[in-house]
Amino acid sequence: MSLTIRLHITNASYPNFQAQNRINRPKNPTKILPNNFYGTNALEPFVYNHRKKVSSMSVNVNPPRTMVVKSSVIDPDGGSLVDLVVPENERDLKVSEAESLPKVKLTKIDLEWVHVLSEGWASPLRGFMRENEYLQSLHFNSLRLQDGSVVNMSLPIVLAIDDLTKEQIGSSPDVGLVGPDGDLIGILRSIEIYKHNKEERIARTWGTTAPGLPYVEEVITPAGNWLLGGDLEVLKPIKYNDGLDHYRLSPKQLRQEFDKRQADAVFAFQLRNPVHNGHALLMNDTRRRLLETGFKNPILLLHPLGGFTKADDVPLDVRMEQHSKVLEDGVLDPETTVVAIFPSPMHYAGPTEVQWHAKARINAGANFYIVGRDPAGMGHPTEKRDLYDPDHGKKVLSMAPGLEKLNILPFRVAAYDTVAKKMSFFDPSRAQDFIFISGTKMRTYARTGENPPDGFMCPRGWKVLVNYYRSLQEQEAKQPAGISA
Amino acid sequence: MSLTIRLHITNASYPNFQAQNRINRPKNPTKILPNNFYGTNALEPFVYNHRKKVSSMSVNVNPPRTMVVKSSVIDPDGGSLVDLVVPENERDLKVSEAESLPKVKLTKIDLEWVHVLSEGWASPLRGFMRENEYLQSLHFNSLRLQDGSVVNMSLPIVLAIDDLTKEQIGSSPDVGLVGPDGDLIGILRSIEIYKHNKEERIARTWGTTAPGLPYVEEVITPAGNWLLGGDLEVLKPIKYNDGLDHYRLSPKQLRQEFDKRQADAVFAFQLRNPVHNGHALLMNDTRRRLLETGFKNPILLLHPLGGFTKADDVPLDVRMEQHSKVLEDGVLDPETTVVAIFPSPMHYAGPTEVQWHAKARINAGANFYIVGRDPAGMGHPTEKRDLYDPDHGKKVLSMAPGLEKLNILPFRVAAYDTVAKKMSFFDPSRAQDFIFISGTKMRTYARTGENPPDGFMCPRGWKVLVNYYRSLQEQEAKQPAGISA
Repeated sequence: MSLTIRLHITNASYPNFQAQNRINRPKNPTKILPNNFYGTNALEPFVYNHRKKVSSMSVNVNPPRTMVVKSSVIDPDGGSLVDLVVPENERDLKVSEAESLPKVKLTKIDLEWVHVLSEGWASPLRGFMRENEYLQSLHFNSLRLQDGSVVNMSLPIVLAIDDLTKEQIGSSPDVGLVGPDGDLIGILRSIEIYKHNKEERIARTWGTTAPGLPYVEEVITPAGNWLLGGDLEVLKPIKYNDGLDHYRLSPKQLRQEFDKRQADAVFAFQLRNPVHNGHALLMNDTRRRLLETGFKNPILLLHPLGGFTKADDVPLDVRMEQHSKVLEDGVLDPETTVVAIFPSPMHYAGPTEVQWHAKARINAGANFYIVGRDPAGMGHPTEKRDLYDPDHGKKVLSMAPGLEKLNILPFRVAAYDTVAKKMSFFDPSRAQDFIFISGTKMRTYARTGENPPDGFMCPRGWKVLVNYYRSLQEQEAKQPAGISA
Repeated sequence: MSLTIRLHITNASYPNFQAQNRINRPKNPTKILPNNFYGTNALEPFVYNHRKKVSSMSVNVNPPRTMVVKSSVIDPDGGSLVDLVVPENERDLKVSEAESLPKVKLTKIDLEWVHVLSEGWASPLRGFMRENEYLQSLHFNSLRLQDGSVVNMSLPIVLAIDDLTKEQIGSSPDVGLVGPDGDLIGILRSIEIYKHNKEERIARTWGTTAPGLPYVEEVITPAGNWLLGGDLEVLKPIKYNDGLDHYRLSPKQLRQEFDKRQADAVFAFQLRNPVHNGHALLMNDTRRRLLETGFKNPILLLHPLGGFTKADDVPLDVRMEQHSKVLEDGVLDPETTVVAIFPSPMHYAGPTEVQWHAKARINAGANFYIVGRDPAGMGHPTEKRDLYDPDHGKKVLSMAPGLEKLNILPFRVAAYDTVAKKMSFFDPSRAQDFIFISGTKMRTYARTGENPPDGFMCPRGWKVLVNYYRSLQEQEAKQPAGISA
């Protein structure tokens, strides 16, 4: 299951190890560096002395001059990570070419998908889907490759265009992509234009066509009636310049980091909410169980989603600050945790979307995936019930084609234990001792300034939330009544 | 790909060949026997002298006393055909047991599904789906088997029950199934009851939730809010006593017939409409192409769907009579054609349903499947357009998991050629010479008594339709105005 690379090594060059030695390491590896507003460099606080471990790899520098380096604990889908960023020495040429092509304007969320595609989160996908990929995704949640193998691909990653843009493209085989700010972003090659049947896409992706689905209203309803597929080339790495780019580690960077830490297991935790002590309990418990199973160095990938989220979710910058505090306060162990941003937009498509969340983490090098109650779910937009059966997410995940190589770790339910005065795994034999604090309830606490029970969340993490909601209320108070932005 | 059975043969017994010799054969094998209203026994007219062919099998009756009999040209899904009818010697015991169990009442369409399941059309499915099968069907259109292999299963085959029935079942592990007429039908064992989320089922199966989908209105909307899965045992073969049961050949019977005819290729044609000469052209052309490819004896399975269809479709009995005429008039060759009824109900679910139509024919022994424009499609129930992209059916079919072993033969478009005065393959270079006669147009012709162009359909087949619509109008005329049944 793991990719092995046979390296030919001369006595003179160990570029990887030299690179490691240049990293500025903290003296005490377990201590957190003083952090900026959103935490320091995503990796720096967690980098500690690998020298001893490097030597433990028993590098044989004498003939036969080959060694086996385990590049990660799990192969990317399709065998190798897709990287669609053009090499720097070709950039000028490609920019000139892109300038000469018919242009397609990207929305902010289109650009998030360009980011996702360019770094290989959707490997082996090499661009926006053509119709044959779109249909497989929509009907089978998977793609069959040339060699007959199957990879998971549950969400259509597509680029919609309107009639006018289609007309402007004409018969050009390639188009230039322009970002929302007017920057030239990339080229889409050997394009295919096909119909965007929005109703069918929505029904098959969400299992409902009820009005009020956040991604549908934000992205699909206003989009054009055509889809544009093709091979993507991105002119340079996508950056947001929002002070969080250092958290945006690509799958390649994450794999390098896991290798550097000599992880023998990587367990991913997808989230779009603040981390409370119940989450922390289950992440720490997962690590404990993996150690008991015999793994020597399981690493946690704490992987908040960074793309589009619905309006009442906690914004990314606030969440990243909150996550920082959780690590600084030692609720999670920085030595065995990597915090990074998953750049995908959120669909809130329950069992269909959770597959995408898991599949992308395979590409990022995780071989264990923690899944909870109702992953990627939300309330039904027009009925008083959950949109999805809360158990379907983990069931579908365990059956999904192309995810067989991933270990699915179902959540144990944690709740506030009023006796122990902390978050504990729910014990049905003394159910009366437990309080379930939902996301909604947590937000209500924070909004009203009321404190949650002691031990629900580390105090500094909680303060981040309280401050956020306070500033939100102040903003709202400043808005003249009757006028909405 | 083909199932081979190694038989140990003694000089004394060739039960199969003896059985063949008992069949009452027409003197002239190509001549059709005089037929009853709905045609004669589905097989009898087409059975001709196999003796010569049997001898060409080069049966070795001397030691080593083994021979390889090719039981069919393609394996059933899961390796062997499911047969859920209890052996006759166990029937009385099972009837007593069924009588003692909590009862579940079946609708007419539930019973059609019992029929489908009992004969192994849905092999390897052994009963109504439990939740893990339902979820795989809904999300992936396929089921993963214990050995890791995948079979196609695009439609949920489920049994809905209401709250009261659920309550009556209580904690019983098994239930008795009662037909719409009150007959005891079978037993469902080791049952599982789970939620019937109708909205999600409809959206993921049809790609729309618009009101007016025939199967939804007839079956799903009035159904209960629970689904009941389990292993099915059927007390005796399902019969309809409508004069058409002799056409209802099981997959096992069909495979036996193909073997008897020594088919080396079987190509299936699914239909729910009368056969016009355009259909015949493409079926005959398919046979010609298969012969050119090197097959010696391709057999056509003309396989009209016999379960639930929407109100304005031509009823099964009329269609069977029409098909009879087509064969009697020699438009299709009875020697190389098997006409039988496919007992499934119709969903009108386009690309999702066409997979089921193809998969069931694998189980019936077909290794080639003809697919046309917009298979299992219909108009959008609330918008002025086709519900599905007319090309999606064949595209999805060619990509569908579990159908890799089936050869998909896309339709060439046939239309009425006003120069040749017959149905021909459409030639875009002289498009003006062609008339497309849709199903709706054909029905309008028949209803108004107007004749279609010469060569559109064999005259006796056409007469069947005209008579049907005339009797329909007479019935309607008899109904008092303002009162509907």
